[in-house]
Formats: sequence, C-alpha cells, structure tokens
Amino acid sequence: MSRYDIAIIGTGPAGISAAITAKVRNKSLILFGKKFSGGKVEKAHQVDNYLGIPSVSGSDLQKKFVEHAEQMGIEFTEQKVTMVMPIGDYFALQTSENEIVEAETVIIASGMTAGRTYPGENEYLGMGVSYCATCDAALYKGKKAAVIGFSPEEEKEADFLAEFASKVYYIPMYKGDANVREGIEVLREKPVRIEGDMQVRKLVTDAGEYEVDGVFILRPSIAPGQLVPGLEMDGSHIKTARDMSTSYPGCYAAGDITGQPYQLIKAAGEGNTAALSAVSYIDERRRKA
Amino acid sequence: MSRYDIAIIGTGPAGISAAITAKVRNKSLILFGKKFSGGKVEKAHQVDNYLGIPSVSGSDLQKKFVEHAEQMGIEFTEQKVTMVMPIGDYFALQTSENEIVEAETVIIASGMTAGRTYPGENEYLGMGVSYCATCDAALYKGKKAAVIGFSPEEEKEADFLAEFASKVYYIPMYKGDANVREGIEVLREKPVRIEGDMQVRKLVTDAGEYEVDGVFILRPSIAPGQLVPGLEMDGSHIKTARDMSTSYPGCYAAGDITGQPYQLIKAAGEGNTAALSAVSYIDERRRKA
Repeated sequence: MSRYDIAIIGTGPAGISAAITAKVRNKSLILFGKKFSGGKVEKAHQVDNYLGIPSVSGSDLQKKFVEHAEQMGIEFTEQKVTMVMPIGDYFALQTSENEIVEAETVIIASGMTAGRTYPGENEYLGMGVSYCATCDAALYKGKKAAVIGFSPEEEKEADFLAEFASKVYYIPMYKGDANVREGIEVLREKPVRIEGDMQVRKLVTDAGEYEVDGVFILRPSIAPGQLVPGLEMDGSHIKTARDMSTSYPGCYAAGDITGQPYQLIKAAGEGNTAALSAVSYIDERRRKA
Repeated sequence: MSRYDIAIIGTGPAGISAAITAKVRNKSLILFGKKFSGGKVEKAHQVDNYLGIPSVSGSDLQKKFVEHAEQMGIEFTEQKVTMVMPIGDYFALQTSENEIVEAETVIIASGMTAGRTYPGENEYLGMGVSYCATCDAALYKGKKAAVIGFSPEEEKEADFLAEFASKVYYIPMYKGDANVREGIEVLREKPVRIEGDMQVRKLVTDAGEYEVDGVFILRPSIAPGQLVPGLEMDGSHIKTARDMSTSYPGCYAAGDITGQPYQLIKAAGEGNTAALSAVSYIDERRRKA
C-alpha cells in the first residue's frame, strides 16, 4: 500500500479546490467523497457571489467544480472516511469499506453536519457507539445492535451487520421505505439517547427502549471532533490558524467546518490555502530528511 | 455628500468579490480601482486552480470578474485612494483627484506592491514626502519638488505640480518617453534615498543630489501602512483576524495584502468574508443606535 502525500476528505468547494491545487503542485492525493451528494452546494437555487460565475444554480456550480477536477485527472473515491488516526509522522484513515489508507497530510473539508450528537454518543464512542458497521460488524456476533441510518445507502450496512448480530434494529431518519433484509426490525421512531454502564446497554427512543450492545450512527458526514479524536475545536468548528493548520501537525481544515461564513467562495479559497500549507509541510520535511 | 456603507479599495479578485457580496447584501458601496490595470492578475498566462474556471488566462479571468460586477450594477471608480483616515465612527478616504469620500467601513484589497519604500520615505511622510501631487501641489508655491512616477499616468501629476512649484524634477520609473510640460527636468536616474532635517531637503539618486522641499512618490498602489496610518502590520502585510478584521474597528483587509499565499481564489474568498464581516458590523451598530 502506498502512502499518499495528501488525503482530502470532502468534495464540496473546499475539498475540490484543495485537490486541484495539490494536483497543480504535483502531489499525490486521494479525494474522498461523492461527486454529487445532493448536499448543501447542490441545494442552493441561485448563487450570486461566486466571483467569476454570475447567477448560477448550486447544482450547475457543483458540476463545474467536478468537471474542473476531472479535467485535471483527479478521481473521486466515493467512500466515507469514518476515522482519522494520527500515527507518528503520518495519518491512517479508516473508510466505510473497512479499508485503511495512509497519508502524510490530511485536509478535512467535510462541511458542517446539520444534526447534533445524541446524548450518550460522545461518551460511548468506541464503547458500543460506532460510525461504521462494515468495520465493526464482526464484533457483534450473537449480539444486539441498533443502526440509525440517515440515508437509504445505510440499509446495506444494516444488512451486513445482520449477518453477524443476533438482532438488528434499523431506524431510518429519512422518508420513504426502508428496504432491509428479513429479520431486521425497522423502527419508525426518533432516537432520544444512548444509555449504558461501562459500555452501551440501551437505546432510548421517543416510543420505547431497546436493549442493545451497540448503536451504529450513520450520518452523511461525521462530526469533526469524532472524525479526528482529540483535535482542538472552537465550539462545533475545527480550530484553524490563518494557514488552515489545526492542532495536529500535518492536519489541515477548510470550508464550513472551520467556521462562518458558510460561503462557497470562502470555502474554495480556504481549500487552496490548506493545500499549499500541506505542500509546504511535506516539502520542508523532505528537505530535512 | 452621502456616506457609503462600505468603501472597497482594489479591483483584483479580493476587491471585486467583496463588492459583489456587499451588493448581494444590499449595502451601498464604492469600489476604487481600475477594471483593467495590466496588473498581477492579468499578467498570469494560465491559471489552473481557480475552482470552477479551468485553465484560463489571467486577463480572461479579470474580464469575467469585471463582467460579474457589472452585471450586478457595480461601478468602478477609477481613482486612486491616497489615504484612509479613521474619524470617530467612520472613515474619510482621500483620492488622487483630491476628493474626500466618507464610508462607515473600509475594505483594503489593494494587493502587494512589488517595490520597497525608499530610505527616508517613511520618516518624512507628511514632512515633504507625499503620495498625491494633486492634493498637495498648492503647498509648493515657489518651492522645489521631485516626482517619482511609476507609470505614464503620473506625468499629468507632475504637470499640475509645475503650475505651482518653481522647479520640478520628474523621474520616470518606466521605459519609454516621459511627456511632461516644458520646464520640468526629466531625470533618468534611480532614486536612492530622501534626506532632510525636520523636513525633506534633498533627493539623492545614483547619479546626483537634488535640493528639494518635497518628494512625490506615485506608485500604482500605496504601501498599506502608509495608506492607513497606524494600522497594525505583520511585516509587510496587514494583520487580520479570521474574519478579516484589522486593528481598526470597521476596517477590514482581504487578498494578497493580508499575507501568503498570493492566490486568486484565496483572495476572492477573503473578499467575501471581509464584506460579510463589514455587513455584520454595520448591522450591529444600527441595531444599537
């Protein structure tokens, strides 16, 4: 397995901008995220202040961003990163398909999640709370688990988990049918909190209580403090300096995740700065080595 | 004379981005600078990392920026701002045509000047060193002055000065003829330093010494520390916080002038942030008033 120079998490304007700048600067990179997620950029009806591209719809703008990246030969790795671990002088990224990717630097541009964490979620992270069923399913052989899925794509995660667990509850947080395999119990209820002792014992909803050994919370993006454990935050945002560096050397952040204003051109500018800072960091280490 | 909500100095990506965002947010604004200055943006042969507009020449990109602004009804005030004075709760801007413009907030996006200041320039600023011949010409009745002009446009400044001064030296810092009025002595020499006692007495060049009472230094843009006297700097850059605020409340900065990296998309992003910060500042003051 080769180690990338730069791993970029997120394919909004910050992530794609970082990718094209990293490419211009001849660094190897891996870009995690969907070309079209139906997310915040694409939902904007009209954008008037993205300098150089007047009155454009958000979805047309995202198309331009993706085309720009593809013209430069940048690939989109449509996996979710579930955890970033600083390991000595590099980072290991765990993906939703349970792969581990290594990179010398990381740029977090995964945007702001609309949702808050559930009470008990932070406390039991790693003690029954998980963000990746594919990764941890094997630990649930003969046990009970709940899956909170924020999009229909998470149904296959629940299915996979059911191959191991004795009982799976699936709680869809979206409208429409939940097509999960037989035996999985679908709950149309609102999760309220996670309870336990040394580890998760119970999921409480607005309609009942379920004894479980684990709760899988599968959001479109993961709260930054949970994605990179121990990263210094400023409220719900990642704390960054003017060069977009964070509290971990080699880890940068860009876009909405670094704070207001939540604007496309601001995000694109920060992605550019983050990539150039990562390039300098890499080049300087190699000069010293 | 009406007072603008936001005065923006500079028509590169930072300044124009600030202008379109200020316009979207319904603020009155005045934008100082040329549509096409032949400056840094336009000189870029190819820009690959302005997200959404792949492989474009700098001059085509500037055209897109200008068109974007014009589509939104933004005018370009093609005057140079020679001084920004904080006056209580607003700012007074002096222009090269000796007008005074008032604004509640200011965004400085005038880029980085390539040139350094001359020895003696900072010391004698206001004591014989000036950046605006039109503004100060009347003070030179019967006196001697030197004009250091960085573009042919400054020739008319020298001409105007010669209507008052008893002797004008004109030092063109560009190639090609200097077409100044009869009586002005053109020196093809390199200025070295400015000397004096309590005020300017002499301009020293690489070929001679000239007794003068004043030296007018007419650059395409003015060093930021001289543009806004007393503004806190970080080396040759204006010191800014993450929201692009400076050490003067109501004064913001964006683009190259705030520091590396000198990149178009970074500048555009900062212009957007600066404008939104100015909007918040104005709105908050009006709520309190």
